[in-house]
Amino acid sequence: MNKRIQAGSGLAAAAAFHIEAVYPSVDDGRFPVKRIVGEPVEVWADIFRNGHEVTVAQLLWKRDGETEWRREPMRHDVNDRWTASFTPRDLGRHHYVVEAWTDEFGTWRRDFERKRDAGVDVSLDALEGASLLTKADAAKREAAAVIVQKCEDFLQNGDAEPLLSPELADAMAESQHRLGLTVSRSYPLVIDRPVARNGAWYEMIPRSQGTTPGQHGTFNDCIARIPEIAALGFDVVYLTPIHPIGTTNRKGRNNALVAAPDDPGSLYAIGSADGGHDAVHPELGTLDDFRNFVTVCKQHGMEVALDIAVQCSPDHPWLREHPEWFRKRPDGSMRFAENPPKKYEDIVNPDFDAPSAPALWDSLRDVILFWVAQGVRIFRIDNPHTKPFPFWEWLIAEVQARHPDTIFLAEAFTRPKLMKGLAKLGFTQSYTYFTWRTYKSEIEDYLRELTGYPERDYYRPNFFVNTPDILPYHLQGGEPWMFKSRVALAATLSSTYGIYNGFELLEHEPIPGKEEYINSEKYEIKVRDWNKPGHIKDYIRQLNEARRSNPALQQTEKLHFVAIEDPNVIGFLKESVDGSNVVAVAIALSADSHDVWFPIGDAEIGPSGSRRKIVAVENVTTGERYAVEWGGIRLWIDPHRDPAILLRCLA
Amino acid sequence: MNKRIQAGSGLAAAAAFHIEAVYPSVDDGRFPVKRIVGEPVEVWADIFRNGHEVTVAQLLWKRDGETEWRREPMRHDVNDRWTASFTPRDLGRHHYVVEAWTDEFGTWRRDFERKRDAGVDVSLDALEGASLLTKADAAKREAAAVIVQKCEDFLQNGDAEPLLSPELADAMAESQHRLGLTVSRSYPLVIDRPVARNGAWYEMIPRSQGTTPGQHGTFNDCIARIPEIAALGFDVVYLTPIHPIGTTNRKGRNNALVAAPDDPGSLYAIGSADGGHDAVHPELGTLDDFRNFVTVCKQHGMEVALDIAVQCSPDHPWLREHPEWFRKRPDGSMRFAENPPKKYEDIVNPDFDAPSAPALWDSLRDVILFWVAQGVRIFRIDNPHTKPFPFWEWLIAEVQARHPDTIFLAEAFTRPKLMKGLAKLGFTQSYTYFTWRTYKSEIEDYLRELTGYPERDYYRPNFFVNTPDILPYHLQGGEPWMFKSRVALAATLSSTYGIYNGFELLEHEPIPGKEEYINSEKYEIKVRDWNKPGHIKDYIRQLNEARRSNPALQQTEKLHFVAIEDPNVIGFLKESVDGSNVVAVAIALSADSHDVWFPIGDAEIGPSGSRRKIVAVENVTTGERYAVEWGGIRLWIDPHRDPAILLRCLA
Repeated sequence: MNKRIQAGSGLAAAAAFHIEAVYPSVDDGRFPVKRIVGEPVEVWADIFRNGHEVTVAQLLWKRDGETEWRREPMRHDVNDRWTASFTPRDLGRHHYVVEAWTDEFGTWRRDFERKRDAGVDVSLDALEGASLLTKADAAKREAAAVIVQKCEDFLQNGDAEPLLSPELADAMAESQHRLGLTVSRSYPLVIDRPVARNGAWYEMIPRSQGTTPGQHGTFNDCIARIPEIAALGFDVVYLTPIHPIGTTNRKGRNNALVAAPDDPGSLYAIGSADGGHDAVHPELGTLDDFRNFVTVCKQHGMEVALDIAVQCSPDHPWLREHPEWFRKRPDGSMRFAENPPKKYEDIVNPDFDAPSAPALWDSLRDVILFWVAQGVRIFRIDNPHTKPFPFWEWLIAEVQARHPDTIFLAEAFTRPKLMKGLAKLGFTQSYTYFTWRTYKSEIEDYLRELTGYPERDYYRPNFFVNTPDILPYHLQGGEPWMFKSRVALAATLSSTYGIYNGFELLEHEPIPGKEEYINSEKYEIKVRDWNKPGHIKDYIRQLNEARRSNPALQQTEKLHFVAIEDPNVIGFLKESVDGSNVVAVAIALSADSHDVWFPIGDAEIGPSGSRRKIVAVENVTTGERYAVEWGGIRLWIDPHRDPAILLRCLA
Repeated sequence: MNKRIQAGSGLAAAAAFHIEAVYPSVDDGRFPVKRIVGEPVEVWADIFRNGHEVTVAQLLWKRDGETEWRREPMRHDVNDRWTASFTPRDLGRHHYVVEAWTDEFGTWRRDFERKRDAGVDVSLDALEGASLLTKADAAKREAAAVIVQKCEDFLQNGDAEPLLSPELADAMAESQHRLGLTVSRSYPLVIDRPVARNGAWYEMIPRSQGTTPGQHGTFNDCIARIPEIAALGFDVVYLTPIHPIGTTNRKGRNNALVAAPDDPGSLYAIGSADGGHDAVHPELGTLDDFRNFVTVCKQHGMEVALDIAVQCSPDHPWLREHPEWFRKRPDGSMRFAENPPKKYEDIVNPDFDAPSAPALWDSLRDVILFWVAQGVRIFRIDNPHTKPFPFWEWLIAEVQARHPDTIFLAEAFTRPKLMKGLAKLGFTQSYTYFTWRTYKSEIEDYLRELTGYPERDYYRPNFFVNTPDILPYHLQGGEPWMFKSRVALAATLSSTYGIYNGFELLEHEPIPGKEEYINSEKYEIKVRDWNKPGHIKDYIRQLNEARRSNPALQQTEKLHFVAIEDPNVIGFLKESVDGSNVVAVAIALSADSHDVWFPIGDAEIGPSGSRRKIVAVENVTTGERYAVEWGGIRLWIDPHRDPAILLRCLA
């Protein structure tokens, strides 16, 4: 009959069941949901058919490439909504599907019992039940034996009791024809490592990690800094590009059009006679030195993230080896990167529309695979929003199919839907607008957006307080309380956050009138005193310690804002995935002292099924305990001492 | 490259653009949206690609079966959201699609102007623009001529001005290659007649339209009642089944298991030696009489709706002609309809799972087509929720492909998702829970659900105050104010509503303890005095007149509840589709007098773009005018006089 329907008027294949509103899903399964390995994935669906027959529903799931589906029985919750869950134990792409069919034997059994209990003659009904047994097609010997035995028992004495046995119900459930079998579309799911969701990032520019002014930093200089960064509690050390830098049209300090002879050039003018995206800048050291850096990071419990920018200096080897990947102008000259009327003459972009683009795609994938082979598993992708969508979807799938532990961070600061679109395509994490969100209401609104469904299921925020490109206005005063407030917000609102080196030293000199650093190390070598007086390293270390000891802070979506009357104090509760840890946070957004009422007493916490009200809190930093009375707790916040209060909640 | 991607890892074909969140759509285009002929269909979509190129988007639409798509340019609204609209002039199934591509020439032109305005040398850019002209593939001669001419003008004197002309922009817009062309899925849309959304229904049982007690009513008796029903302002006369009634196991009065010799049997035990679903019960008259009835209704500006119940009496001709459509029991006896432990021995259901079901489907479709041939275009389908979903989707599409003016009303009183599921499958209108919703909050909640998106786009409610099966408790007291309140609620909240005959006479005798009529004419012949003292026909006529003269009441979704403090007065505004007519309604839900403040003064009304506050109201019934002062108006409602006040709003 399906054929008839399709022939009829182009209708979609009609199904006996409607399977609707499948949760979780992103654009009805066009893009994958993201989850963490070892955590249950709860699936819900509306499932119904006509009439009053008994429905069976199952959740099927498998890892990409597996041939066998695993099956979980779905349970009817209420109002035709069904649920089941499964717990992936492997990384990588998975799929799930909902199936429903009619339980003919179960329907017979239910109706038989209703009639029998009402005193109706059921002798014909018993015969009908037995005839269902004869139609079963038992794949398993045990089921077949049960069915035959119960059928014989019934026929021998005409007593229907054997037909109602639970064993027979089970045997028939797995053996009978699945009448009206309806299969949902397949929903993709990507399973990542915990660090995909939870990590403190430290961004550093290797050229500036040296100790001698004017001298180019090396990987060994970077290695020397690792113990300290690890001691501060960071999880990821993220390096800006480490590749050879071109000399043609090299940019000078502060992005000057002409470079002085000893200017090192822009980090993002990638490629020279020394190599391209799969080489290291000779002044940083060798590939062995880099591998050594990766190893030392690992020894200190940290991972390395590499910055990948799909762009070339005019001296990149690809321009000679693959001129067909680049566009020329009508006079035969190079087509430089531009954002009209601005031109970037130290950079050329490969042409993704070129006929030879497939080979370009392969080479870019091989760049990633090259660094994977050097031990890197986290890639921060520069400006992904200027490259085609199909490329990213393909690249990330290609790499993760081979190395499902790979993580991609999208560095896109652009229009909101474009940023979300990139996350849907497969980016594991995304940059955010947090860097510019300062008012309580805008922070709350933005977090509600990020933690709402379906955003929370595909967009994993990474809150950076600053970046080499962004020195936000609110940091330009250099006030310690503001730096502390911002890093506390980032570290507690989002389970993944980052600082760009220099933040801990309160660096804050802008290009006048702009949200950019003056004398940026993007174009020059800096040497810093990492223990410069006034630094806030201890503060950051405390925050990272609080994050490590509180699973509530290791996830972003279980977030609940608490109404605090003071418009310059933001308050919220965070709860761990399993409900066992809850942290209440209050952070000042202005420099004055705040005396606030924090009404957390009505919130219920704890594992589902045994949730209770908060009765006491324990200061995460000091260990002091306070009772929650009259529905809340009074807080005194002096931002100059500490703008943030973190309280572990006790029920 | 698409091939590469699909080969890669089973990803969906990647596209240059994301086209997301297409509005309106039901389950992302699996089911059709419903709209009314001649009204604009506004479509919205999120459309974006990587980078900063100029995007072109178009909305394509056509009627089912047409080969050419019509195209409407889409306009960027804000934040990557685009919109366009079209106005279908034909009934039936339509489709729409969103297309987006990159405007290469437009991008060039924009960038050229930016650079030129910034004083950059643009001589190479001009050449690049000209080279785009040579790649254009002009289908239209005029466009080709413009492109050639402008190219020559440019080459002759090297002045770029000709390349920037609007005519060339137009010629290139239609001629250039559509780079990155991305096409959304096709979204179905059903265009119906206005009566699909707006109509007052009068349900009557033909056997009871006679004037001599004990004598079976006829079509001619029905005809005699038409002038009065038309004068009351009804739009649709709906007849319960008119087919021959079986005699085997015929039910007696009040659903008795044994019928007395002169009992006429249940209207729903369809089929006898006199014929089945395509015959009329001989006691009602002939098929000619029925056609005459249809004609007279038309002459009075009314349509006829027929009740179609897919079930048979044991005497239905199909049981002899097509025994393969019916299930037998193991002893060869008939399998009667049942809802265990209840049995319906005057009815057998055809078996939709039978191997011969395709022929059954065809015959049921032919039943509908038979009545279409007799002039009927509205079918009220009895108990559709007990027949397979694929059948309804197929049947409705089959009939509407031939007769797109056909309307199907789903008489399903069952679980909410199942009712919505039937509406999605194609039912033009649906019964609702209104019949049992009496409290202000539950009425408001239910209307918010029905008028929310996407429900409002596929589920058209038909609010019945009573039915032959339902005498709700709140009517069993027989209080006139309650009957008036209920019919006023139905007639103003929903643009389609209905009464079952006898309501106007305040009939209210139940089977004790049940919400059912005692001595129901489903099982016997009634003769009524249609002018019985105490009738509320004038009241109903006034309501129907208000509906006819106020387009605001001819649609359901533009509804806005107004906060009235009195918990027993419900207040709301309704606005016509074009915004030209607004009616404020207040209805008492309890018998006591109400003195309420109706705060309508802040609502803005009128066509979009020139909306203004309400300054005065005019009583729809009396024509009296009142100024709206202090943000509202004070109402005095005496339910015993009239529980409802309808006010036309003036801005």
